[in-house]
Amino acid sequence: MNNASTLFAITMGDPAGIGPEIALKALSLAQFPVQEKFFIIGDLSILRPISREIKNCAELREMRSETDFAFGKINVYNMNLISPDAFVTGKPQAACGRASYGYVLKGIELCLKGSIGGIVTNPISKEALSMAKIPYPGHTEILADKTGTNNFSMMFALDNVHVAHVTTHVGLREAIGLITKDRVLGHIMLLHKTLVQLGFENPAIAVGGLNPHAGENGLFGDEERLHIIPAIAEAAKQGVVVTGPYPPDTVFMRAFKGEFIGVVAMLHDHGFVALKSRDFENGVNITIGLPIIRTSVGHGTAFDIAGKGIASEKSLLAAMRAAVLLRKHTY
Amino acid sequence: MNNASTLFAITMGDPAGIGPEIALKALSLAQFPVQEKFFIIGDLSILRPISREIKNCAELREMRSETDFAFGKINVYNMNLISPDAFVTGKPQAACGRASYGYVLKGIELCLKGSIGGIVTNPISKEALSMAKIPYPGHTEILADKTGTNNFSMMFALDNVHVAHVTTHVGLREAIGLITKDRVLGHIMLLHKTLVQLGFENPAIAVGGLNPHAGENGLFGDEERLHIIPAIAEAAKQGVVVTGPYPPDTVFMRAFKGEFIGVVAMLHDHGFVALKSRDFENGVNITIGLPIIRTSVGHGTAFDIAGKGIASEKSLLAAMRAAVLLRKHTY
Repeated sequence: MNNASTLFAITMGDPAGIGPEIALKALSLAQFPVQEKFFIIGDLSILRPISREIKNCAELREMRSETDFAFGKINVYNMNLISPDAFVTGKPQAACGRASYGYVLKGIELCLKGSIGGIVTNPISKEALSMAKIPYPGHTEILADKTGTNNFSMMFALDNVHVAHVTTHVGLREAIGLITKDRVLGHIMLLHKTLVQLGFENPAIAVGGLNPHAGENGLFGDEERLHIIPAIAEAAKQGVVVTGPYPPDTVFMRAFKGEFIGVVAMLHDHGFVALKSRDFENGVNITIGLPIIRTSVGHGTAFDIAGKGIASEKSLLAAMRAAVLLRKHTY
Repeated sequence: MNNASTLFAITMGDPAGIGPEIALKALSLAQFPVQEKFFIIGDLSILRPISREIKNCAELREMRSETDFAFGKINVYNMNLISPDAFVTGKPQAACGRASYGYVLKGIELCLKGSIGGIVTNPISKEALSMAKIPYPGHTEILADKTGTNNFSMMFALDNVHVAHVTTHVGLREAIGLITKDRVLGHIMLLHKTLVQLGFENPAIAVGGLNPHAGENGLFGDEERLHIIPAIAEAAKQGVVVTGPYPPDTVFMRAFKGEFIGVVAMLHDHGFVALKSRDFENGVNITIGLPIIRTSVGHGTAFDIAGKGIASEKSLLAAMRAAVLLRKHTY
């Protein structure tokens, strides 16, 4: 497959969330060159009624196969996993969890067999997945498992800052126990590799601490001394431009001012608090370390505004751009 | 003492940091009505040479007592605690730790005896305090101890959002253990009281969770269920407009959009990451629950830029405004 013909898939996300609406909006507005072609993996019966509520929505079209693509229309790879009368909009339900999981599995399958260049995922509900007895808390874990990946990281990109998280969807007590030299080192190296793939030369990476003020030289916790500092030293020895540990409350601000391209954050709510406080709409979530390209919107299902026609497609458009960029620099 | 004659003190902060420089800049530029009068508690021998490097710096003047104030000049309550040849600019030193501690003690003394309406503090260095064997990690703990206060909180204000922190300068492992129903409830009630004092009627308060996604309904940790939810229920029962727990990575963004006036954050690096990522220069730190008024700059000593003449006085000016506002609404 050459770049000129690369297709990308957008998964529809939880049918009761804002995924269907923003996918239709993004593909109606799309400003992409024609060689970058996106289709939706989802359910036509769900998308059709929503498309009628969207101003100037492009025409929907059912694909006969994953390569059957028509320009100027919204191409849908129709999964027939759920019907509109099987759920209500705006809350987590088992039937929606099952369907949203099915779209992701199909996306992974198409990536692995080389039919598409990558997937861009819309939000799924962890609660709906749990109600459907699907044993994953989110996309990242599904993707890692189904592609047989052990060393991966959830990276979030906003403006020119790329944040990799050493821990994500675990309780805080458990997260502290996961901060080991090897794990921190693995995330530094993975972020370095991804930034080089994205086209940055000798990218400057900062490592945030775990404790307030990065432990204030051992006054508030010893994880920096025992695990984080040795990991930074080892990565630097291997040629990575990496410094730290920096206090969590200033490292992101310094990165946004241009001092660092990458930040390794110890906790979900160091990185995500910084990124979402700065800009909720344009962030992009990228799973790094996978054998496939996967980007995602930065927000959740937004059940509270689903079905109201007011959801913004900005983050999805940013995620689509990032997938195309990653593809260009990786292959 | 009536409001018209209220004086406020600015402590000079660590002599090797940016405190002396920004105090002089703020008082040269000050846009305050004359009844709101600020003087510096510090050392004239340190301030004089720095004043010569500041463009249009107002004239320095030594006060003979804490009430000896002259308009149009920079009034200095001269402590004679350190001389310029006893330290170098730009790093933590025991002599500077001792002096910076002395300025704070004098400020507290003047507040407690009613000579001044409040203190606005410049940054001190935790490391310098530790080198000087002063047994406090920072201002908040000094203030609580010297005023005999047990129930206090570090509040950070930015724009119209006021964040109270349930835990601050402790390691993360210890912080988790401090999240109890009583402690969370105490911080909700203290923030509510302060917001009412600041003039807000029925202020809407949001409580952030401890774990990622506020525990995702018990999937990632049980502190929300065991401690935080019961504290919110109890505060609501007592008439406070309070909701939560919300995911730490979205609660601040919602507050900045206007949904909440106050946020109770479980961790130092929930609140401070959000606030500093949004705006580093204009934040104000307010210790609430004290019998005296104390506000502070939101940043640290900034040793790396001390002595270069490039430090910004914006946060100090915001802290001065906040002290005056608190005084007006409290007395």
